[in-house]
Amino acid sequence: MGALISGTAAYVIYRREQLVLAEERFDPTKRKPRLVILGTGWGAATMVKDLNLENYEVAIVSPRNYFLFTPLLPSTTVGTIDFRSIVENIRSYLRRHRSNAAMYYEASCTDIDHVNKKVHCKDESDVRSAVSTFELEYDYLVIAVGAFNNTFGTPGVRENTFFLKDINDSICIRRKIMDCFETANLPHVSPEEKQKLLHFVIVGGGPTGVEFAGELQDFIKEDLVRHFPNLCRYANVTLIQSADHILNTYAAAISAYAEKNFQKEEIELITNARVTDVRAGEMTVTLKKTKEEKVIPFGCCIWSTGIAPNTVVKRFCESMPNIQKNRKGVTTDHFMRVLGAEGVYAIGDCATVEQRALKNKFVDLFAQADADGDGSLTQAEFAELIRVVTPEYPQLKEYAYKVGKLFAEADINKDGELSIKEFEQLLEYADKKMTDLPATAQVASQQGKYLAKSFNDMVTGQPIYPFDYKHKGSLAYVGGNTAVAEIGNQVLGGLATWYLWRSVYLSQQHSLRCKLSIAWDWTKTIIFGRDTSRF
Amino acid sequence: MGALISGTAAYVIYRREQLVLAEERFDPTKRKPRLVILGTGWGAATMVKDLNLENYEVAIVSPRNYFLFTPLLPSTTVGTIDFRSIVENIRSYLRRHRSNAAMYYEASCTDIDHVNKKVHCKDESDVRSAVSTFELEYDYLVIAVGAFNNTFGTPGVRENTFFLKDINDSICIRRKIMDCFETANLPHVSPEEKQKLLHFVIVGGGPTGVEFAGELQDFIKEDLVRHFPNLCRYANVTLIQSADHILNTYAAAISAYAEKNFQKEEIELITNARVTDVRAGEMTVTLKKTKEEKVIPFGCCIWSTGIAPNTVVKRFCESMPNIQKNRKGVTTDHFMRVLGAEGVYAIGDCATVEQRALKNKFVDLFAQADADGDGSLTQAEFAELIRVVTPEYPQLKEYAYKVGKLFAEADINKDGELSIKEFEQLLEYADKKMTDLPATAQVASQQGKYLAKSFNDMVTGQPIYPFDYKHKGSLAYVGGNTAVAEIGNQVLGGLATWYLWRSVYLSQQHSLRCKLSIAWDWTKTIIFGRDTSRF
Repeated sequence: MGALISGTAAYVIYRREQLVLAEERFDPTKRKPRLVILGTGWGAATMVKDLNLENYEVAIVSPRNYFLFTPLLPSTTVGTIDFRSIVENIRSYLRRHRSNAAMYYEASCTDIDHVNKKVHCKDESDVRSAVSTFELEYDYLVIAVGAFNNTFGTPGVRENTFFLKDINDSICIRRKIMDCFETANLPHVSPEEKQKLLHFVIVGGGPTGVEFAGELQDFIKEDLVRHFPNLCRYANVTLIQSADHILNTYAAAISAYAEKNFQKEEIELITNARVTDVRAGEMTVTLKKTKEEKVIPFGCCIWSTGIAPNTVVKRFCESMPNIQKNRKGVTTDHFMRVLGAEGVYAIGDCATVEQRALKNKFVDLFAQADADGDGSLTQAEFAELIRVVTPEYPQLKEYAYKVGKLFAEADINKDGELSIKEFEQLLEYADKKMTDLPATAQVASQQGKYLAKSFNDMVTGQPIYPFDYKHKGSLAYVGGNTAVAEIGNQVLGGLATWYLWRSVYLSQQHSLRCKLSIAWDWTKTIIFGRDTSRF
Repeated sequence: MGALISGTAAYVIYRREQLVLAEERFDPTKRKPRLVILGTGWGAATMVKDLNLENYEVAIVSPRNYFLFTPLLPSTTVGTIDFRSIVENIRSYLRRHRSNAAMYYEASCTDIDHVNKKVHCKDESDVRSAVSTFELEYDYLVIAVGAFNNTFGTPGVRENTFFLKDINDSICIRRKIMDCFETANLPHVSPEEKQKLLHFVIVGGGPTGVEFAGELQDFIKEDLVRHFPNLCRYANVTLIQSADHILNTYAAAISAYAEKNFQKEEIELITNARVTDVRAGEMTVTLKKTKEEKVIPFGCCIWSTGIAPNTVVKRFCESMPNIQKNRKGVTTDHFMRVLGAEGVYAIGDCATVEQRALKNKFVDLFAQADADGDGSLTQAEFAELIRVVTPEYPQLKEYAYKVGKLFAEADINKDGELSIKEFEQLLEYADKKMTDLPATAQVASQQGKYLAKSFNDMVTGQPIYPFDYKHKGSLAYVGGNTAVAEIGNQVLGGLATWYLWRSVYLSQQHSLRCKLSIAWDWTKTIIFGRDTSRF
């Protein structure tokens, strides 16, 4: 009887979790709810694309009036693809819905007042009206503002290196690369200076850093060598990575393939190294293993080591110190609702989905699972628990299809049942699989799509399920017409993967204009090479 | 007998003028002569394109490493054409010749030392080597550095308006237009402020100003109206012209057509007006006829009123105050040789071909023409003079095919011969036709082509004739898919002329890449509209 009650209770908890959003019914006689979306990146743009704009009074606020297809950003730094080919004005997404109610405002959100349900905004661009600040009231707020670059407090990074997050970064890098070559080409420059000016250093071995290194080496070997035949022997590309391997969030085989390709392409790799100081034209690097300090001169440095929370997100979290404790960004539940702020959602790089440790709840979970109340779990009781609680505890997800194997492993004394001790150990083991979702376009766009569906379903009263990330694979271009890919358990690399890389990115474009433009840019690069005009 | 001598003398003078450059024979055992070309604009690029680079040790110096197809620059300010579609790296011109001897240096020439045959150069870009200056020695120097914008001393122009001479100007204007619209679109902006922010003022009614006005109005009417449906009624384009009419160097019919088209396109036109002062967001304009002063508020102002000499050109002329007296630029003879500086040539916007008044030489000319020495000129004697001296006095050019008519008109007493008095009056009349060549792409490119041929012919010992400008017509886009054209005595306007405008400019591209890129950009604009992303 007790078991029945606890079983029912568990089901009810889960159903409530499913339906909680659907309870907020819409009254058609009232005005439309005001939905403010902060941002125009992967999270926001994907959400706007799928959202039924007729149901809400939508306002989008972002200092950037376009969506940027970030995975192809490294290609624009050397002109393989033109800047405008990978951007799409956010208003194009609004026009698709024929709704005049949806507005976009080019401004930055400076403050979120979740108590009074208001956002404070400021026009920070060059052209401003007499009053450059304004407020927007909201019923629902979606924070999708992305994140800043993380310098890990390294001195001199902001002044002497380039980030690679936005089109303007890419424009500056393209100009800088050419300026380094043009200056090295002047008649009075010594060979040592040429070498320094043409040393391009990338700090950070994630996909952005790796792809940029590959694109730059292509540019040097394919195009610059024709324009500067006597200069290219001075040019070097170096990638500095703090971990053992580059692309270290990918499978080990991918890293190995990428590293081998770098060797072939003559891209120097310094692993287990930490940049401790950057000055104009040189940096200090500490090699972790030997503790040796090295001074590396450079002409141009790109910094791409990870993300840090944005000013407004930081301030917002600090306003709720007891609830928002994560320093990486806004913590949300599995419905992307921000903890402690009613009606506020967060997605993308600025958000972290709360991870609940199973171990802390093992007594409750055991009681919930022990349907017959006999103090031990049968495989059937265990399987049912996994099924019911997985949405709340994604670390269990990978066990869903191998419950039997997991059960057998956890049943240490092989009595065919799990004691509470055995159960505790199993949960402890499962918690080790608990990791934050990576700060990728893929996560942000899935969250955007999820939130659009949630907001659409809210109106129609459909049940809303927790967000469930489905990793579709990883791709990276590593130079020399070679890409690497991780799709499911498959690991691929080479020329064919490069075609795959291109066709996947082409198919993911939100607009036909971008698709055709990118295809044309690629064709142009093959036929005519990349343009080296500097402006 | 005297007549024979003077006739022969005239012929000899003319022949010497033809051959003077050819006298400088090349000794194949000696090193190649060093030819330094300053600039990468119309004059320099056209010259390099046609020059046989094998004959000289060529060095090109310019702060801009690309040739820019300036006639399409207004189209790039609104995105009808992309920036990179109208530029071509100067090294592409050098590679065509398979010569490694030709070098390009990205630097500005700061000083011309024509006495020691040296130029002083400086790298003024962001990336510089330890020493940023260098010198180049030359045997021949071609000055083709173009000109600055002329503000006519109007206060505030440099700080508060945009010029439209280079790609970077165009990039800034495109960003600014979008910024004005985005700011006007913010929720708290008053209708008065919207009107001000969306008032685009162009100062100067030459082809650049007129084409920009047309392109901008197209952008507003075709694209921005879709993105800002409630905002475009506040948008206005105004062109301020100091003369009576816009395009006032063209035929009157062209001006009239353009003005009618502006009316149709709702581009406001203020003629006979002089801008006396520009401040942030407003300017003072004096209406010439009424002397009335008007304050005009604006969101964005483009200044396109004419040219002024570049710093290095000014300094160079000031070093020869007795010879170089023209304030507009370097004075050259009809072979483009700079007066007073041996081995130095100048072409394009920085150069002015010396105009010799016929009247000052009427006694000598009369003696030269009077072959039979009878104190009066027969029509045959007169015709022969015209033929011989026209290369030196281009103001005679238009009489070459109507010598009979001119002679009849000048022969006031109708005695069938010209007295010295009648001859003097005729020359005075002809001198009135003496005008400087306009500062256009067409003049500069013809001069570049001419100089390339001169330098090629110098080596082979071919005779070199004075430069002879052949006006091939004028074209201008005036908005609303309408262009105007002046070809020979033909005046055209309308949609068909727009197609002509497009096909002429397309055919003039120096590279296939630019041709295809422009064609694709036009197609993209027709299908998808112009991109309004702001970066």
